[in-house]
Amino acid sequence: MIVALDAMGGDNAPDVNVEGAIEAIRETDDIEVILVGNKDVLTEKLHARLHMKDMATKATANMLDSKRITIRHSSEVVEMNEAATLALRKKKDSSIRVAVDLVKSGEANAVVSAGHSGVAMTTALLYLGKLSGVDRPAIGVVMPTLNGRFLLIDSGANVDCKPVNLLQFAYMGSAYVKTVFAEKSPRIGMISIGEEDTKGNELTKEAFKLLKDSNLNFVGNIEGKDVFFDTADVVVCDGFIGNTVLKLSEGLSDVFMKMLKRELSSLWFGKLSYLLLRPAIRNFKKLMNYEEYGGAPLLGIDGTCIISHGRSTAKAIRNAIKVANKLAKNNLHKQISEELSSINCSSINGKELLNVNCKYKEKEFVKG
Amino acid sequence: MIVALDAMGGDNAPDVNVEGAIEAIRETDDIEVILVGNKDVLTEKLHARLHMKDMATKATANMLDSKRITIRHSSEVVEMNEAATLALRKKKDSSIRVAVDLVKSGEANAVVSAGHSGVAMTTALLYLGKLSGVDRPAIGVVMPTLNGRFLLIDSGANVDCKPVNLLQFAYMGSAYVKTVFAEKSPRIGMISIGEEDTKGNELTKEAFKLLKDSNLNFVGNIEGKDVFFDTADVVVCDGFIGNTVLKLSEGLSDVFMKMLKRELSSLWFGKLSYLLLRPAIRNFKKLMNYEEYGGAPLLGIDGTCIISHGRSTAKAIRNAIKVANKLAKNNLHKQISEELSSINCSSINGKELLNVNCKYKEKEFVKG
Repeated sequence: MIVALDAMGGDNAPDVNVEGAIEAIRETDDIEVILVGNKDVLTEKLHARLHMKDMATKATANMLDSKRITIRHSSEVVEMNEAATLALRKKKDSSIRVAVDLVKSGEANAVVSAGHSGVAMTTALLYLGKLSGVDRPAIGVVMPTLNGRFLLIDSGANVDCKPVNLLQFAYMGSAYVKTVFAEKSPRIGMISIGEEDTKGNELTKEAFKLLKDSNLNFVGNIEGKDVFFDTADVVVCDGFIGNTVLKLSEGLSDVFMKMLKRELSSLWFGKLSYLLLRPAIRNFKKLMNYEEYGGAPLLGIDGTCIISHGRSTAKAIRNAIKVANKLAKNNLHKQISEELSSINCSSINGKELLNVNCKYKEKEFVKG
Repeated sequence: MIVALDAMGGDNAPDVNVEGAIEAIRETDDIEVILVGNKDVLTEKLHARLHMKDMATKATANMLDSKRITIRHSSEVVEMNEAATLALRKKKDSSIRVAVDLVKSGEANAVVSAGHSGVAMTTALLYLGKLSGVDRPAIGVVMPTLNGRFLLIDSGANVDCKPVNLLQFAYMGSAYVKTVFAEKSPRIGMISIGEEDTKGNELTKEAFKLLKDSNLNFVGNIEGKDVFFDTADVVVCDGFIGNTVLKLSEGLSDVFMKMLKRELSSLWFGKLSYLLLRPAIRNFKKLMNYEEYGGAPLLGIDGTCIISHGRSTAKAIRNAIKVANKLAKNNLHKQISEELSSINCSSINGKELLNVNCKYKEKEFVKG
């Protein structure tokens, strides 16, 4: 697959982007990367890489020779703190816009950006378009659990949702888990403040009814304390909750490590035990580390787009490119489209759907 | 202070309730407890306690002699899975209702319940009443941080909030921190998905304006990843978010301990190091353990009411009674009332307040 990488996006761009692309190509044999950004800057970075006297130099030269890594010029960059609306209107030749256009024109199969996430999402949405049956695309993030993982959707694209949005997130998440993790019947849960049907806020109580009446494998409400104990494969929530869950987990695991280190240093054998424990701590960190996951797909658009953390390292970019490759290869957006079109309307309570103002469902329901 | 304890409320009632009351009295010299519940059952439990041949027996006898522990009969109990509305209407002589009535009549200074939290909150609200200036009472939970603590408000009483509710939570939380932790100018933060003013959902964006225009020490939006790093003394959010934060933290610390244990056991010196590390791990657990905090105050009502975890142990009940004693002694509800009445209306943008349908503010603003 050919991945268009927004080589100018992210706090550490373009260095980590170039390095991440080289690593991704070196570690696989089916990925090509188009670095999108300032041609002079990127050429210089690649050449500097070629002149480094390390083991990777020859491999990089091979990549360039084989055209597995190429450069596509763009004259503008969207800065991280820029107003999204302005950037979208003014910067027609930004690296993210050109990268998305490569997917639109079919020159690339997927796009990866660690730049301004609002601009990246909107650009992908505007130029690749939404899948039929999707009101709002959402970000899915794979999170670790005690013995596995779950997809958290929406992780931050939509801060104010309607019940039907959550239902659509569930279908998109289900398609993701079927495709990427080969689960036949993904368990769908929804974050709420109690397990009972009646617990929750207005949004989740209405969404509960829709999910219960759907043909998904809905396992009910899940409380915050249970999400990390393998209770569901897809955890649905609005983007405000999802983003809070994501960032809280990041902060808590960070504070845990610091507290543990402090507790250890108060013991007389503290330093020794920290050394002994380092492998265990490293494994835990790895589990909670966004770099390992690389990036999160924007689900519900007609194409493959990976949104990476602004603070992405080369490792994170490398993994994001790999994820993009996997999703594009599996045609995830087509799977989502199919999943949504396969909704058995007669098994869903039409009245409920009308109540929550679900246009596409309404239409399908009338048709059926 | 005299604490009315709902002795029949909670998963492990009445045993842990009786034991917790005895412990609280033994460890302090200014607390009296009225055990509210079935007289025969409670008398039997207390007597059984007297016949235990441990060190506490004599102390318990002394408590009974000195009337520091007494029993008030109530003929009914609200079960944990009961429908709240029905229980409130039908069970006029429930232990929680009788306990609240003791505060209302002035026979007790505070009430503690680990029973059905919805019923406990509503009973306290109905019979003790709201403070003037409060639209919705909220639950405040003290949470640990790397080097201190913060009050999370609302932790679950109100799942759907208006901006003005968050403003009131901020004032209530500010009064709590001033009174209980003796902070002169508590830092108020609000959970959102980005630090900038413009980040958030409809609710938080409106609430941001109110908080910014208030006379509180508002430090702005706080992301989930920063709440545990001493960024604020009071963290404001709606009850759905608050409850999710609370339960997610519980779940994550649990999974963290399990992962660490597993990682350790995979090392050849794993068992040994786990033994060596036990004190450090115990300290860490203590920090994240709800038992230590005992219970959470329902803030905004005209009296002192502590809501404890349904799974409360004797230790949790003991600590809840101590917290109740402290808050009642400090007259926290009077402090909150004062804090709310001290709002400098001229420093708040009146138009904003009218927009968000803030009755009491509107009135005060017109007055001012």
